[in-house]
Amino acid sequence: MPDQSISRRRLLGTAGATGIALGAAGGAAGYAVASSGSGEGSGGTAAAPLTSLGSEEVMFHGKHQPGITTPMQGHGHLIAFDLVAGAGRKEAAALLRRWSATAERLMAGEAAASDDTDVARDAGPSSLTVTFGFGSTFFSRTGLEKQRPVALDPLPDFSSDHIDQARSNGDLWVQIGANDALVAFHALRAVQTEARGVARVRWQMNGFNRSPGATARPMTARNLMGQIDGTNNPKPTDDDFDQRIFVPTSGDPSWMAGGSYAVVRRIRMLLDDWEKLSQKDQENVIGRRKSDGAPLTGGTETTEPKLEQTDADGNLVIPINAHARITRPDQNGGAAMLRRPFSFHDGFDADGVPDAGLLFICWQADPLRGFVPVQRKLDRGDALSPFIRHESSGLFAVPGGAAKGEYVGQRLLEA
Amino acid sequence: MPDQSISRRRLLGTAGATGIALGAAGGAAGYAVASSGSGEGSGGTAAAPLTSLGSEEVMFHGKHQPGITTPMQGHGHLIAFDLVAGAGRKEAAALLRRWSATAERLMAGEAAASDDTDVARDAGPSSLTVTFGFGSTFFSRTGLEKQRPVALDPLPDFSSDHIDQARSNGDLWVQIGANDALVAFHALRAVQTEARGVARVRWQMNGFNRSPGATARPMTARNLMGQIDGTNNPKPTDDDFDQRIFVPTSGDPSWMAGGSYAVVRRIRMLLDDWEKLSQKDQENVIGRRKSDGAPLTGGTETTEPKLEQTDADGNLVIPINAHARITRPDQNGGAAMLRRPFSFHDGFDADGVPDAGLLFICWQADPLRGFVPVQRKLDRGDALSPFIRHESSGLFAVPGGAAKGEYVGQRLLEA
Repeated sequence: MPDQSISRRRLLGTAGATGIALGAAGGAAGYAVASSGSGEGSGGTAAAPLTSLGSEEVMFHGKHQPGITTPMQGHGHLIAFDLVAGAGRKEAAALLRRWSATAERLMAGEAAASDDTDVARDAGPSSLTVTFGFGSTFFSRTGLEKQRPVALDPLPDFSSDHIDQARSNGDLWVQIGANDALVAFHALRAVQTEARGVARVRWQMNGFNRSPGATARPMTARNLMGQIDGTNNPKPTDDDFDQRIFVPTSGDPSWMAGGSYAVVRRIRMLLDDWEKLSQKDQENVIGRRKSDGAPLTGGTETTEPKLEQTDADGNLVIPINAHARITRPDQNGGAAMLRRPFSFHDGFDADGVPDAGLLFICWQADPLRGFVPVQRKLDRGDALSPFIRHESSGLFAVPGGAAKGEYVGQRLLEA
Repeated sequence: MPDQSISRRRLLGTAGATGIALGAAGGAAGYAVASSGSGEGSGGTAAAPLTSLGSEEVMFHGKHQPGITTPMQGHGHLIAFDLVAGAGRKEAAALLRRWSATAERLMAGEAAASDDTDVARDAGPSSLTVTFGFGSTFFSRTGLEKQRPVALDPLPDFSSDHIDQARSNGDLWVQIGANDALVAFHALRAVQTEARGVARVRWQMNGFNRSPGATARPMTARNLMGQIDGTNNPKPTDDDFDQRIFVPTSGDPSWMAGGSYAVVRRIRMLLDDWEKLSQKDQENVIGRRKSDGAPLTGGTETTEPKLEQTDADGNLVIPINAHARITRPDQNGGAAMLRRPFSFHDGFDADGVPDAGLLFICWQADPLRGFVPVQRKLDRGDALSPFIRHESSGLFAVPGGAAKGEYVGQRLLEA
């Protein structure tokens, strides 16, 4: 990441990998006002200082788009669009230019250039990220078939899929994350209104993660099954991290250099069934302890599982169909994907069954080497399968980050 | 509030009014583990310290239930239940006893007594509150007609209502708030599963507010219209606050002493229409500046509006139908209610129109003197009416807080 953040104070330790900065007191967080004694808070939100939750700023420009290696945020919105009839490459280019300019402003904690709704007013950037992607159908609709990556070929069907096409795929996809709900909604609404006349909403989903500061334990996130989820994620410090997650400069197509492919699955959790299991049975399904995520063969969350270890009766301690066994990268030809999900909860149905689960989002340089082989194995024999249902699916080409003066997707749309 | 929090460090300045304490390092926040260097965070949530966001604890026991004067939290769930056929007073009493015990544990940052889902594991209390109320229909179903408060008589119809009865009222109502999404969901799920066999979910709604620390300005919350909302809320320091918000010891019925009545309205905001207005037109609808909530006649958010002031043309500066004029307590016979809402956003409809707005919750000692007269005036001539739609309505009797060893509603159910 180049020199665009010279004037900003870096957040020690994570800035290099994630492009995060703290808004300088001098006004980097332009939309948030300075603390003052005026106003009154009783009955409203209490008089809280602008903490790192509010002041953290993620850089818009860079080699990669934000929202991929950025630490998971408390609030997320996913929204997919289809181009309207009559809108083609030119209109899409203008839209991506508008979207990029707005994303840059909002991520810096500033208002949109015009017609801002004021919903995020007074707030800091709150780690807002806005990430843009293209679905397979985008290319035919814009006359760019020749630029369509082979990696966007449709995912194979999996036997456990219950896919609702209306909530799947789409010409354009935007991922929004922030640590404040109003900052996130403000960005969502800006993205939507700027698409008017060019693209209509195809589907939209809301998600959440733990708030920063809610736990003292520097551990991987928990999901709504109560499981620690993401232990084996590749780390930006891994030697082969970039190679596995991002398309190389020499990649094909060239406009995807520095980009990544996102697989998005709305995975409903059948919590009523899951919670009927004893803790021991749940742990056998996963192959890890629920309390701390350590393998059933002992140690801590980061200890390597002893996959061959047997108990006194000669049975595998980590069952043959345990989720953690099946998804281990070294069991999948080195396939690796960066999982960066949000949980979701959209209420209860008439029988009181929660419509809740995981907005699974994984990132990889090549979905055919990342998501597909793992999902194929899971599809055949994962002990977790009876407790989840894949309800929607999306696959998007997420181009590299925009350089200064450039907009996201420009290398595709103005090639 | 008595001596139940002797062992806890008080949060300076707000503890008296709100019953908030910071979990002591020695283990008050029992469910959160101490900070440690083990584990790994990359790709998951970053290694964040347990800040005041996570460690703040609201007291369960007290004169009033929590969640009324508690500062607004970032996440909220509302859930209403109907008793199932065959469940009466005895089963309801057992349920309230279970619910109270669980609320006390979870609010202290502990796991539920049995079958905990582990979803909140590792997190601090995160200002969790759980608040219980009774709807009008509860009393006939439990043979307690004579204990039914007159204040639970149905609200009058308002001409602007578009009420969905399936999402309105209910025998039992629970409000959950927390500053962490998983802590809030964990409590919601515990409340729901403990009701099994006794009460079924009638409706459930999710909401949010700004995260603590996202803004430096000690000001009232903003809503999804971008307006500062709640300026004229009564303050716990007002001489007549308790009198207006809580049922007195001498009140009728006696089991409601220390209690309050909650009016709950799902108010859809017609954001597409609202956002078409210029900022000036929006400000004339409200009668206040959008930027800082000051009256159009000048000053700051807390300055008294000059309702009679006219401009050079002789027109009222604050229009005759401005929302802030109509809702002013001194224009409504001193009626006062404590508004403590959550915003909501449940996605977009097929036309891309957001299903978003305000989960309006207001608290008062007497709804016929609080909510009803104000809503009646708004119904006749509020400039804001064309931009909102009341889609559901609930009215609940929320008893006083449980003393140590007591459960919420015991004075009703064991009278």
